Amino acid sequence: MIVPVILSGGSGTRLWPLSRPAHPKQLLAMVDDRTMLRATIDRLVGVAEAAPPIVVCNADHHHLVATELAAAGHDPDRVVLEPIGRNTAPALAAAALLVDDQASLLLVLPADHVVENEPAFREAVAAGVPFAEEGRLVTFGIVPRSAETGYGYIEMGEPLSGSIREVAAFVEKPDLATAERYVAGGDHLWNSGMFLFRADRFLEELERRRPDIVAAVRHAVAGAVRDNGIHLDATAFGSSPSDSIDYAVMEHTDAAVVVPLDAGWSDVGSWLALWELSSPDSSGNVTIGDVIAIDMTGSYVRAGGRLVAAIGLDDVVVVDTPDALLVAAKERSQDVKGVVDRLRAGDRPEAERNRRERRPWGSFEVLETGSGYQVKRLTVSAGRRLSLQRHRNRAEKWTVVAGTGVVTVDEERTAVSRGDTVSIDVGSVHRVMNDGETDLEIIEVQVGSYLGEDDIERLEDDYGRS
Amino acid sequence: MIVPVILSGGSGTRLWPLSRPAHPKQLLAMVDDRTMLRATIDRLVGVAEAAPPIVVCNADHHHLVATELAAAGHDPDRVVLEPIGRNTAPALAAAALLVDDQASLLLVLPADHVVENEPAFREAVAAGVPFAEEGRLVTFGIVPRSAETGYGYIEMGEPLSGSIREVAAFVEKPDLATAERYVAGGDHLWNSGMFLFRADRFLEELERRRPDIVAAVRHAVAGAVRDNGIHLDATAFGSSPSDSIDYAVMEHTDAAVVVPLDAGWSDVGSWLALWELSSPDSSGNVTIGDVIAIDMTGSYVRAGGRLVAAIGLDDVVVVDTPDALLVAAKERSQDVKGVVDRLRAGDRPEAERNRRERRPWGSFEVLETGSGYQVKRLTVSAGRRLSLQRHRNRAEKWTVVAGTGVVTVDEERTAVSRGDTVSIDVGSVHRVMNDGETDLEIIEVQVGSYLGEDDIERLEDDYGRS
Repeated sequence: MIVPVILSGGSGTRLWPLSRPAHPKQLLAMVDDRTMLRATIDRLVGVAEAAPPIVVCNADHHHLVATELAAAGHDPDRVVLEPIGRNTAPALAAAALLVDDQASLLLVLPADHVVENEPAFREAVAAGVPFAEEGRLVTFGIVPRSAETGYGYIEMGEPLSGSIREVAAFVEKPDLATAERYVAGGDHLWNSGMFLFRADRFLEELERRRPDIVAAVRHAVAGAVRDNGIHLDATAFGSSPSDSIDYAVMEHTDAAVVVPLDAGWSDVGSWLALWELSSPDSSGNVTIGDVIAIDMTGSYVRAGGRLVAAIGLDDVVVVDTPDALLVAAKERSQDVKGVVDRLRAGDRPEAERNRRERRPWGSFEVLETGSGYQVKRLTVSAGRRLSLQRHRNRAEKWTVVAGTGVVTVDEERTAVSRGDTVSIDVGSVHRVMNDGETDLEIIEVQVGSYLGEDDIERLEDDYGRS
Repeated sequence: MIVPVILSGGSGTRLWPLSRPAHPKQLLAMVDDRTMLRATIDRLVGVAEAAPPIVVCNADHHHLVATELAAAGHDPDRVVLEPIGRNTAPALAAAALLVDDQASLLLVLPADHVVENEPAFREAVAAGVPFAEEGRLVTFGIVPRSAETGYGYIEMGEPLSGSIREVAAFVEKPDLATAERYVAGGDHLWNSGMFLFRADRFLEELERRRPDIVAAVRHAVAGAVRDNGIHLDATAFGSSPSDSIDYAVMEHTDAAVVVPLDAGWSDVGSWLALWELSSPDSSGNVTIGDVIAIDMTGSYVRAGGRLVAAIGLDDVVVVDTPDALLVAAKERSQDVKGVVDRLRAGDRPEAERNRRERRPWGSFEVLETGSGYQVKRLTVSAGRRLSLQRHRNRAEKWTVVAGTGVVTVDEERTAVSRGDTVSIDVGSVHRVMNDGETDLEIIEVQVGSYLGEDDIERLEDDYGRS
């Protein structure tokens, strides 16, 4: 049996300002109308003998990931929740330890990659299965389309069967001349971060090189709490060293095998990569949303909630979000990282959070932040309700602008609909439930001395957050 | 005596999206921290024998203009209000007819020009005075700094006194080769649209060529209502043909004289021009607001209420506003007009109005527009109050987030301060007054079937709008 393990730990800042740690690219619809995680789940349909996937993710993303699993028809509880990020080796170790049959094959897939040719992907997996069953560690190497300097490479060794070969070596990101030589030579593939191997064999190899990781993760799994997903023990998992599957295992084992994959793969590592994937028109442009473009070529323009007018641009990326705008030369789009680093150094929220944040009950968006007040739009999904909660430092004034619901404030329950207002004093216990069939939308005006998201005491919650 | 007449009729769309007809560039702080109108008023300080200025403007801008006059220490009632735009000849005719002493000199200045060297400007005016007093029509010609094809030119004729010469001819906007020849030859100046002449002489010359304009404007002045300014009769003024001072008078008269002016003049006709005026740094960049720029040269980046990150840009203009964003190659910035034309053809509000609109009582900004609702922030200046008003199609929910005031709803008056809420039903007569010393800020949530600004019935108003 093949157990797909989807690693959803990336913070996705290379696609800032759209993708941010609170809402990274695997949880956004970057390429088509599905999240990248959903596309990764869908890609498994047709993989022979595949069990339902397990997703390993940041605990902060629990409900977003569970929602994606449920929407794809899978058990939303098949999530392993990391209390803190420790890179891919500990994440995968946790999944491997949790698999009942240790002889199962783990198909390891990052949640934020694109594979355009899904049949070719499934064929490559099938070709790797006999080697994995034998105990080999199978890695999928991407047939390079260009002399990329942003990827590690796999040097292929002796032929084994068809195009499958031994791994001669893993090679660090090369300089351009070296990369050109690799591509011309035909013996090097891009390291994709996708693997297939038996759970027990991975753990055995990891134990050999990094017993410290295995020990810490064993404790984290032993202490895990099962509550709509597997919550790894925070102290134990936090004590694990941080390391990648490549460094901890693949680069050292002599059991590695590589299956070449030529399937339109991309890790969508920059706006340039996303532009390439987005089928530019005959002028080389990709425009999304409300865009007026005059004499533009080779550009990617993504409007947010407002009009973008572009004049005379060549090879430029424009990405607009409610609180941050990126305008970059397309070839420089990997330097977005430098912007994010500066924002982090300044402790700015634009580096971490989006103005619109999803919650298990729906979402909210900050419309305006002023001195001592903040305006939000809350969108409560049909049938959902917020936690029963109170705030120490802020009063909230709600005006319902769409849908219907029931509001509780202290002892009082009131049915509300469009045009109704509710005042919630500092310290009042309150909750709202959408009892209708459509979204309930509320404009919330917060007034208070402190307006942080952490000023919330949850007395009761449908989503395990109290 | 010299009566400065400031023509404030331009719609300023060449600096879209910041400048729009509802709030054109003369009423914005484009170059320094003053509005361009205020800078024009200030430029008159030190002009010998100058009376207080008269401003001719669109009636929609009445209170914005009056506020600027008052702030400069002038009588805010010295405004001539055009019910409709008819270009500069009728506008100036109205001002000329309204001047008591017809032998007064009119110093005609557009409200949206920059003159960096004010002493040179005043010297040029002084040099023109003897000619204007004699009955000549003095025009100020700008010593060209480059072969501009966007301006008309004045060909200089016989010398009169010092650098002052007869006008040989007015020349239409030339092609580049012709413009280069003009600049090299030294006998051509840019036509600035600034003039000095006796009121009676201008009217006499206008009467000769365009008696229809003079007749219509005479009726508009005769029928004008004086109420905090001179409101020209709408029917009569609307019946005037539309024409410019240049076409109607200057190009035909044989009384024209030109005073060369070399004073850092600009009509700020594009973002490129504004970039030049804004003292670019050593990399050629101008950044305003919250901008992070990496490897940028020759660019103008103006952030609005959000962060702008710019990477690897050369010679690009980025102008961010709450509802529209412009990204343009700097050399193409005059093509903004093409965007505005498209927006107008689509009847889009971004062509005409700003999200933040000033009112005599303060300002408001639309924070969010949804289906059947709208969220605004109202800012009421100290001591001001909105009109007593009602709406047919919308209810309003107010939350006070700063300051103090008194709210009237139907028969009830209530003192309000931060955190208070007020519900105004459809059809309720209401008003709010700021009785404090600081801005009163209110978040208004409108709910209704129609949310246009024209759904307002003003029963009483401090600013003559009822």
